[in-house]
Amino acid sequence: MTIGILGGGQLGRMLALAAYPLGEFISIFDPDGDCCAGHVAPVFKAGFGDTSALEAWAKACKVVTFESENIAGEVLQTVQRHTTVAPGLVSLTISQDRLLEKQRLRDLGIDTMPFAAVDSLADLQQALGNIGIPAVLKTRRGGYDGKGQRIIRSPDDAEAAFNALGRRNLIVEGFAAFSREVSIVGVRGVDGDEVIYPLTENEHRDGILRTSRNLVGDPLHAEAEHKIRRLMTDLGHVGALALELFDVQGRLIANEIAPRVHNTGHWTIEGAETSQFENHVRAITGRHLGVTETRGYCAMVNFIGSTPDLDKLLALPGVHAHFYGKTGRPGRKVGHATVVAASAQARDDAVAGINRLLAA
Amino acid sequence: MTIGILGGGQLGRMLALAAYPLGEFISIFDPDGDCCAGHVAPVFKAGFGDTSALEAWAKACKVVTFESENIAGEVLQTVQRHTTVAPGLVSLTISQDRLLEKQRLRDLGIDTMPFAAVDSLADLQQALGNIGIPAVLKTRRGGYDGKGQRIIRSPDDAEAAFNALGRRNLIVEGFAAFSREVSIVGVRGVDGDEVIYPLTENEHRDGILRTSRNLVGDPLHAEAEHKIRRLMTDLGHVGALALELFDVQGRLIANEIAPRVHNTGHWTIEGAETSQFENHVRAITGRHLGVTETRGYCAMVNFIGSTPDLDKLLALPGVHAHFYGKTGRPGRKVGHATVVAASAQARDDAVAGINRLLAA
Repeated sequence: MTIGILGGGQLGRMLALAAYPLGEFISIFDPDGDCCAGHVAPVFKAGFGDTSALEAWAKACKVVTFESENIAGEVLQTVQRHTTVAPGLVSLTISQDRLLEKQRLRDLGIDTMPFAAVDSLADLQQALGNIGIPAVLKTRRGGYDGKGQRIIRSPDDAEAAFNALGRRNLIVEGFAAFSREVSIVGVRGVDGDEVIYPLTENEHRDGILRTSRNLVGDPLHAEAEHKIRRLMTDLGHVGALALELFDVQGRLIANEIAPRVHNTGHWTIEGAETSQFENHVRAITGRHLGVTETRGYCAMVNFIGSTPDLDKLLALPGVHAHFYGKTGRPGRKVGHATVVAASAQARDDAVAGINRLLAA
Repeated sequence: MTIGILGGGQLGRMLALAAYPLGEFISIFDPDGDCCAGHVAPVFKAGFGDTSALEAWAKACKVVTFESENIAGEVLQTVQRHTTVAPGLVSLTISQDRLLEKQRLRDLGIDTMPFAAVDSLADLQQALGNIGIPAVLKTRRGGYDGKGQRIIRSPDDAEAAFNALGRRNLIVEGFAAFSREVSIVGVRGVDGDEVIYPLTENEHRDGILRTSRNLVGDPLHAEAEHKIRRLMTDLGHVGALALELFDVQGRLIANEIAPRVHNTGHWTIEGAETSQFENHVRAITGRHLGVTETRGYCAMVNFIGSTPDLDKLLALPGVHAHFYGKTGRPGRKVGHATVVAASAQARDDAVAGINRLLAA
């Protein structure tokens, strides 16, 4: 069947590469004919606002998925008039608005930091009184990789942050003094079957994910798994979903939902028996989901701005390269490496080796 | 860089899928724009006899490889006037002519069955006198999957076989009363570095490969590895190479060389840390070769003529699907499954499960 993917970035590219061995065909919808998924799959080149193009494309696809929650709900609504869409509009809507997201999590009994909607300076000041300081002011929509947010460390910061972020459609949240950032990726099938990958520990720098490590036997895994199962079921989600969490003194606090394959799940390409990409494809095409068992101590290191020397990278034991074919640019994700090792030490040695290449 | 692949069948398709994560670009040269590699990579559609098309294409490729030894040497000669070719003409020439192949093997001290060139009925009768009966008469060129050969079981069969196979450019070989068919795949880099996959045991039916199993700790592996290293070095080979062997009462007899990734190495996609496809790409692009360590007890089951039910296939533990996107047709290879298991028993159970689906 032909699977349509809205967006031709690296997630679309890796979804295509996972779909081909299943005999599926891919069509990428993207305004940029030279997008990196377009190097491995045909591109239907048109703007997301071009309704008739979307309709023509949707009719040629058996199922349509998306690689980013930053597409307009109207796009998905147009597409689903002509073909099956997975995940659905509910998952998209919830995850593209931080306020709706936090409200949904709270309704499900999944702990979050205290939060409040902010559409005026008075809202903000009242909320800061309840939540306390430090707090984080964020745009409800559109932020990613640390963009669209300001930390308020004193009451004097409030007005400047409020003005900088556009004075409306904001959310303020308590600042999580976390010991670790973790995430969990689950995949839910059309029939409600669910598979869950192990909890992953993540390191960010300058708001951008740098390194993820799967956690073997982490005591908080069971709680994280419970949360993501509850969330996927509630959303009627179909496909991969990631839940980012803070570990605040052993208590898991939900931070963000991504209704798609996730950067913190890239280690599963070599590190799990079935990758998040293949399981997403299996889910949206109504197939049996694959085993998520891991192959050892795994990691993922992002390449931001530029890639390291490929030959030196390939010489590192247990390391596999994933270059996206994108042009380097500061802050841009252009590739990653995965590590699979027999021990935590061997895994961390490999990560250190990759980081030395990146620093070279 | 752009890697050119002569031929757009499933081997070209799987090479492309292995090349993309390394950030490489692919261009397939094939007269059929709808070839199955063309579903995952751009096709330069032209005939192999179209020299100016070949030249234009070659100029746009940093390196060119081939997925079949059934391309004319002239094609490779044309291409190598404009870009690097790997493997080279020597490997192609030797492996596309059974007589040159057997002579080369004999010259290297690699055991073969006794053989003789046949260009007349007198040649054949004299050879049968030396070699004995049963014997196998084969065309020197172009045969595959059991085509282009006849078994001579009595002197009376000789003339009919001779006439059926075209009366010239033939080779007659002693009939190997083998206990097992095995093969070994090696990959040699530009710098002469070599990596070797474990010996694999193969089952054919009607002349077509059905099942391969990697052999864990087989006593004949070392001898097979010695032979393939000798051969790759002698040929100055760059890329993957397969050597098919008969186990005749514990003695390894070379049967055939394939200067490319090989059907009996498909289990390496999930079964080895680095697949034969990725290592071929690494070799021809001058990269460091990857570790060939296996992930357990592995197998590959070919889908001939048609594919089994995909969903049922994916429900089998340890099984991964590789569908080629080809139309089913009797005798045509349209896909395969790989198995990775923790024990020989679990592996064989999975193979039996796949065979039950194929029989359904």
